[in-house]
Amino acid sequence: MALIGKLVVCGVGLIGGSFALALRKKKKVGRIIGIGRSRGSLEHAQALGVIDEIASDWGSALDGADFVLLSMPVGQTDAVMGAMAPYLQPPTVVTDAGSTKHNVMFSVYQRLAAHLPYVVPAHPIAGTEKNGVQAASATLFRGKCTVVTPLSENDPVAVELVREAWQACGASVVDMSPQDHDRVFAAVSHLPHLLSFGLVHELAGRANAELLFSHAASGFRDFTRIAASHPEMWRDICLANRQALLGELDQYLGELALIRSLLLSGNGLRLEQIFREARQARTKWGENRAANGKGNGKG
Amino acid sequence: MALIGKLVVCGVGLIGGSFALALRKKKKVGRIIGIGRSRGSLEHAQALGVIDEIASDWGSALDGADFVLLSMPVGQTDAVMGAMAPYLQPPTVVTDAGSTKHNVMFSVYQRLAAHLPYVVPAHPIAGTEKNGVQAASATLFRGKCTVVTPLSENDPVAVELVREAWQACGASVVDMSPQDHDRVFAAVSHLPHLLSFGLVHELAGRANAELLFSHAASGFRDFTRIAASHPEMWRDICLANRQALLGELDQYLGELALIRSLLLSGNGLRLEQIFREARQARTKWGENRAANGKGNGKG
Repeated sequence: MALIGKLVVCGVGLIGGSFALALRKKKKVGRIIGIGRSRGSLEHAQALGVIDEIASDWGSALDGADFVLLSMPVGQTDAVMGAMAPYLQPPTVVTDAGSTKHNVMFSVYQRLAAHLPYVVPAHPIAGTEKNGVQAASATLFRGKCTVVTPLSENDPVAVELVREAWQACGASVVDMSPQDHDRVFAAVSHLPHLLSFGLVHELAGRANAELLFSHAASGFRDFTRIAASHPEMWRDICLANRQALLGELDQYLGELALIRSLLLSGNGLRLEQIFREARQARTKWGENRAANGKGNGKG
Repeated sequence: MALIGKLVVCGVGLIGGSFALALRKKKKVGRIIGIGRSRGSLEHAQALGVIDEIASDWGSALDGADFVLLSMPVGQTDAVMGAMAPYLQPPTVVTDAGSTKHNVMFSVYQRLAAHLPYVVPAHPIAGTEKNGVQAASATLFRGKCTVVTPLSENDPVAVELVREAWQACGASVVDMSPQDHDRVFAAVSHLPHLLSFGLVHELAGRANAELLFSHAASGFRDFTRIAASHPEMWRDICLANRQALLGELDQYLGELALIRSLLLSGNGLRLEQIFREARQARTKWGENRAANGKGNGKG
């Protein structure tokens, strides 16, 4: 039996498209309606069979909807919630896939105050540097984790439905507070993206960029894979999680200041110690990941 | 016909072992002799069939040798060249696989001044975060590039032999000056390694390190793959290429200062522009790499 009769996906890109494909494959969904700012993208999604219909307004999209996934860049969250609010009726469940949660919570309380029992923010920890519905895949979330940050006002039935939907996609589900979520992902995701973008941008602006890039090899390839990520999506994440990200960046700048002073003074002993501790931690992380069936963690 | 009758490999690890395996597979070598500081490693290499014999001193190693590859961590270069110098006779050709070239050149002129026509420094641009002879492979250098930094005193026949040996391993060969080499690899290899080590080290030292690592996903995996690299090897590289690396680090710190100020002021327009330029450059790099048969460059 279908878990969700009518599913509405707002922003049918990599994440929204993969969610739709995964639920359809598992026969967990009846009809899938797409809505978004780009008619062309929605038509592409329909042509690919990811969605069944395109809604041109929130009134028709939400009419009889069981479940709404908001999967556009997080910077649009507030405007989208404002636009959908007048048409939202219980017991339609709303969730999102935003990479930041504090700002989403803020918009939920601002824009969807009358609907709090049914709005369950979440964040699937999956993605690639590719974007767009053409990159969507029914298996994107398989073996991955989705973080759910329930509101104290949530109806347990709504939370359970969001959990089941993500589990049907193959993801495991964990609960976190929005504050913890934003701090953790600032450290292990947002900062590395910023650092990778920064390195490529800095090198690309040099007079000898072509020479430099021509000698870049597999270390550079892996370090900079995420520098090919979606600019608007990452702009929105950086702005939405600005506070936590600045804190992480400053902590990292402290580490670089230490490393710089060790380089300057030629302190090989301490440099090697830092490298050794990093290697141990990274190797252990890869081994734990492999033990949890997530590949060997070594790229 | 064998290109090299008697090959001596000093430091039979990932690089030296792969060189030996590749030449043997192509039947380009007669006997392979290993020498190094760790008897255990050499016995392991012999047991794996990577080397035929173990030399316990430079006198016996160099007796009748045609070709010597120095492939120990670069910090040992000066001491090794000093130790081998008294036994080195023309026309034995000596090359190395060091990731830095300025310091190697310095040692060549200091320690092997009587042998300059036959010493041809080089750097194969290949490797993984793994190390040791157990990670060696006959195909490690296939499709990769080896940079050769010939001395003005070199005998062209010696340079040609070094080229042919690397080409026999499947690598293409390019010439650079040691100065250009060290600047280019500080930017596209040494700095990314330092940044990756630094991130993992910083996170691993936190009270909530376990929580952070438990939520790290594929972006983190690729960004930090090189943080599992060999600590001693990278200590030596950082110290040997300290000057160029400090220059690169400072340029990168300038980029991070810019990004920090844009974050602080919430300048989404400029942040997105930086991300967009990075993405364009990284995508173009990946496409060029794919066109050159080096995989799609996207990890």
